[in-house]
Amino acid sequence: MARPREFNETEALSGAMNAFWTSGYDGTSIPDLLKATGLSRSSLYETFGDKSALFEAATGLYFRTHGQPRMEALRQATSTMQGLRRFFGLQIGSCLDPKSPNGCLLTNTCTSLSSHDPKIEYMLRKSNRLFRAELLALLVRGQQAGEIPQDRDVESLSHMLMAVSFGLNVAARVDPDRRSLHAMANAALKAIE
Amino acid sequence: MARPREFNETEALSGAMNAFWTSGYDGTSIPDLLKATGLSRSSLYETFGDKSALFEAATGLYFRTHGQPRMEALRQATSTMQGLRRFFGLQIGSCLDPKSPNGCLLTNTCTSLSSHDPKIEYMLRKSNRLFRAELLALLVRGQQAGEIPQDRDVESLSHMLMAVSFGLNVAARVDPDRRSLHAMANAALKAIE
Repeated sequence: MARPREFNETEALSGAMNAFWTSGYDGTSIPDLLKATGLSRSSLYETFGDKSALFEAATGLYFRTHGQPRMEALRQATSTMQGLRRFFGLQIGSCLDPKSPNGCLLTNTCTSLSSHDPKIEYMLRKSNRLFRAELLALLVRGQQAGEIPQDRDVESLSHMLMAVSFGLNVAARVDPDRRSLHAMANAALKAIE
Repeated sequence: MARPREFNETEALSGAMNAFWTSGYDGTSIPDLLKATGLSRSSLYETFGDKSALFEAATGLYFRTHGQPRMEALRQATSTMQGLRRFFGLQIGSCLDPKSPNGCLLTNTCTSLSSHDPKIEYMLRKSNRLFRAELLALLVRGQQAGEIPQDRDVESLSHMLMAVSFGLNVAARVDPDRRSLHAMANAALKAIE
């Protein structure tokens, strides 16, 4: 029987996720991660590998707890507008949640990535592209169902909705005002109908 | 006669601006700033004061070289759409400029601010609010001139345009694709007409 670990791996990973969320990839040092996880340097490396492997595990947890419900809101939408409203509602809820760091782990990492680590850049690019593909799929379904007028350029709209989602994360970071964040989302949704 | 400084203050400040632009406020350490400015620690403190005073001077330079022309595009617009098109054209040009760090100094700082330094937060909040006020003023002028339909909610549109501008900075950081960035701006502008 394997010896039980002396620490809770999920809690340690959750601490690492919050550290990366607060400061981005480059802004989070190994000492920050030791403090956030409560682990010794050797336990950290033994359990999670190096910093980029730990980041990958932390973004995996972020995706399961924060990204996944939002992506499901888009995938399981009963209509395009319902799905987008639910998506932005979840995002704004998370931006305003006093228990979480502000904004979005991935947005914060995108804008603070100064090291140009190709592996991290690739992960972020892939995540952004998947997100836009989900938006586009939902818009196309809405256009096919006659919910969105045929003359709307859904390709451009999917880019714009992604930009608004990123922009919400930025604005919420220093000015987390519920009304302003909803105004951003509502004006973007009005452009679709 | 004052002894001439042994270094070019503007060049040093420009180096500091690029360092903050690349890594945000928290992500830029004093050793990073010494390297970026080419100054000794004592010259740095003597010339610019502490890190937050240097940040203030660096954002001042950023505003004069990058923010000011964009704000003038909004203020001196011959029509609302012309002004917004010029604004986003300048922003996208700067995002794609290979000579500059990607994205926007202020956006990068917003999303990487983990220290909750009240002075820096206040500066960023003030800058965001001024930006939105300029957008709103231009939209109101357009509505008064009959360029923008009366039923448009210009307050919400100003929030949405600000979000798209922030989102452009985020997207450009890991995926600086000209077509995608223009699609974001164009779909946002289409929502106004």
